[in-house]
Amino acid sequence: MNIIQLIEKKRDKKPLTEDEISWFVAALCSDKIPDYQVSALLMAICINGMNDDETAVLTRCMAQSGDMIDMSFIDGVTVDKHSSGGVGDKISLICAPMAAACGLPVAKMSGRGLGFSGGTIDKLESIPGFRTSISQEEFRRFVSRDGIALMSQTKNVAPADKRLYALRDVTGTVPSIPLIASSIMSKKLACGCDAIVLDVKYGSGAFMKTAEQAVELAVLMESIGRKNGREVTALITNMEQPLGNAVGNALEVKEAIQTLKGEGPADVTELSYIISSFMLTAGKKAPDLHTARRMLENSVKSGAALEKLRRLISNQGGDTSVIDHPEQLKAAPVIKTVLSPESGVITGINGEITGNACLTLKVGRLSKTDEIDHSTGFVLLAKAGNKVEKGQPIAQIHSDSEEAALSAEKQLLSAYTFGQEYAPKPLLAAYIDKEGIHYDKNSH
Amino acid sequence: MNIIQLIEKKRDKKPLTEDEISWFVAALCSDKIPDYQVSALLMAICINGMNDDETAVLTRCMAQSGDMIDMSFIDGVTVDKHSSGGVGDKISLICAPMAAACGLPVAKMSGRGLGFSGGTIDKLESIPGFRTSISQEEFRRFVSRDGIALMSQTKNVAPADKRLYALRDVTGTVPSIPLIASSIMSKKLACGCDAIVLDVKYGSGAFMKTAEQAVELAVLMESIGRKNGREVTALITNMEQPLGNAVGNALEVKEAIQTLKGEGPADVTELSYIISSFMLTAGKKAPDLHTARRMLENSVKSGAALEKLRRLISNQGGDTSVIDHPEQLKAAPVIKTVLSPESGVITGINGEITGNACLTLKVGRLSKTDEIDHSTGFVLLAKAGNKVEKGQPIAQIHSDSEEAALSAEKQLLSAYTFGQEYAPKPLLAAYIDKEGIHYDKNSH
Repeated sequence: MNIIQLIEKKRDKKPLTEDEISWFVAALCSDKIPDYQVSALLMAICINGMNDDETAVLTRCMAQSGDMIDMSFIDGVTVDKHSSGGVGDKISLICAPMAAACGLPVAKMSGRGLGFSGGTIDKLESIPGFRTSISQEEFRRFVSRDGIALMSQTKNVAPADKRLYALRDVTGTVPSIPLIASSIMSKKLACGCDAIVLDVKYGSGAFMKTAEQAVELAVLMESIGRKNGREVTALITNMEQPLGNAVGNALEVKEAIQTLKGEGPADVTELSYIISSFMLTAGKKAPDLHTARRMLENSVKSGAALEKLRRLISNQGGDTSVIDHPEQLKAAPVIKTVLSPESGVITGINGEITGNACLTLKVGRLSKTDEIDHSTGFVLLAKAGNKVEKGQPIAQIHSDSEEAALSAEKQLLSAYTFGQEYAPKPLLAAYIDKEGIHYDKNSH
Repeated sequence: MNIIQLIEKKRDKKPLTEDEISWFVAALCSDKIPDYQVSALLMAICINGMNDDETAVLTRCMAQSGDMIDMSFIDGVTVDKHSSGGVGDKISLICAPMAAACGLPVAKMSGRGLGFSGGTIDKLESIPGFRTSISQEEFRRFVSRDGIALMSQTKNVAPADKRLYALRDVTGTVPSIPLIASSIMSKKLACGCDAIVLDVKYGSGAFMKTAEQAVELAVLMESIGRKNGREVTALITNMEQPLGNAVGNALEVKEAIQTLKGEGPADVTELSYIISSFMLTAGKKAPDLHTARRMLENSVKSGAALEKLRRLISNQGGDTSVIDHPEQLKAAPVIKTVLSPESGVITGINGEITGNACLTLKVGRLSKTDEIDHSTGFVLLAKAGNKVEKGQPIAQIHSDSEEAALSAEKQLLSAYTFGQEYAPKPLLAAYIDKEGIHYDKNSH
């Protein structure tokens, strides 16, 4: 086999065989293919696409290029949850203890965030003492005993994906649905769970700008999972503005704690219930979404969900006093109030611009070696649909310097749009499972 | 400007601006763009194409990336001739002295062949003593005094093309009509002639397999020339089998001498007259193709064309005795006769396979450092349309060893196809000039 033949096939819109894809991934990982040939193939894939079978095979080969985690120590169906990411997305911090409180073992491996915001691992590390680098042995013990553990991914998860992503990033080949799907799913396959609940976001704050693109990606990821023996449910959720009010590592932990106390913002609360309901049904802990929802609401009311979070934190060395006193989380030295520049109804808060504001405040990192600040971020005091008066506070910026606060204020102000009225979209637009696309969340 | 933006534009089928293309070629030549980004752009161009304006600009920038030859020392219209190449194509060796004998100054720069066969320069070097690396000063003196000189290209002709071609060759991006056209035409623009006669071949022996592809390439090259102030005539000629009988450097020189004596094979003679006629009209040395043809026939009859070849050889240090005694050209030690494996009409002699036989015999080179053999090759004794009996000699292989002769024999035998009848195609299918496509060669 030779790489030029593979490139030529893909250039001519022909599908690659299983042998060819598997040869390619092996050669890639043993550094036998120069970058200029890999990037030519990536561009051919980006323009000419790959069919579902090719994508499923590529994903499996990428997963198998590194460690394959064995979750068989857990009884029953194991469930993983993944979000395509967005500004203010702290849903994993809420779903994990909620679902665990309802009897679903949560054994979650997460990567660090790369981009505008921190990942779940980064957020948890804003809790003093919390260790995300626990051993496999601890991980198993915590899950077996308390039904919950969260650890950072080992370095060797899907190394083929890392190599491809590094090249895609600099060769204009990121926005390819088969490549995006295989990149996400290779890591999910490697993490070894039987069922996967995906939160695929669309809108100005998400990578997929339209619901149609998000559905296309979700359908492909379900197919990749199915062809590799995993049960995937992919939710298509709206992301026209940041999720909840808090954006930033410690600020989001605070909001997650509030939500587990039943006092979170409406959108965060609702999305957490929706996603956790799908997790419980996927994990056979609830017969249907309706029952799941009631179980989850009860876990919040009874305090069981919050207790699971407390157990997670104490198991992994964190200071549990932040649960009752979230004000003990590290606070930023500068807090600046942003005033509305006009009167009217807020019609949107652009996700890309707020994402850039996050980078200004060091909430996220652009390169792996960037330092992030756990204390910074912003809190939105007014969101889409709210009517505001000129001069009214609409946001609070938490920063380590006046200078960064000023830049972030400029960015935030340009993210807000104002108008006469606002027609909200439902949080969940549709979901995809092995039976197809469902546009009504209650039809599950 | 940044290369990722350019890649993304081309990935999304958007045209690049003049500034972008010119920036790209400059950055390419100063090694500022890594290969993996260049190859991603090449693949995007290969799949999504370039429009005529983009291609003309790219060609000009590639030409200007190196030396631009000044031909203004020649009075009147200067004419260059270029062939897209094929097995047995010795037409330049015949057209150059013929056209010079009819008063057209021939100042030809050629590259060395890369591929199955040697280039014009390689063929001339099979004449003992012939120097193709003459100085600019000699080149000008010979053209001014005798109306003919042939030299090898300086190294610095269109270096951007060299860099792109090296990558295209290993990234599956060779077969792109805009990239092929700009590669050929960048070298023609750099060589400084006012008018260019292109011989664009199609068929099994040529890079373009169909007349339609050849017309597409020709139309684009005419447009590139026109947009850069050059007058281009592109002939679409048939190449279903090797041209003439002789294939190999010295063997082709011999056949060229025969043709200039009026004793060449019919196809070589005819194509030489056709191409030279277009050269004479492009160079304003003949009012029309018909008159040009008569002038050329007379130059052969009178011996004037052969005298021009003698002058070319003597000017450049070659042994002119080969003209009267072509048997003095270096001969191969092994001559093997190939017998027809069956009885019937020869319906074709595959160009790709005979090309591979050339490589076996070291007629051409695959890499720049390969040594070629001037004496080897083969002579076809029977061609498409000929009726042969089983066991009848159909070809003669000239080789430096029995072993190579045996391999080449196998290849040659598999190149021949036999059948009941053969419908010959006309040598000239059409020609393209600034007025468009002409399907009748006499309409010029």
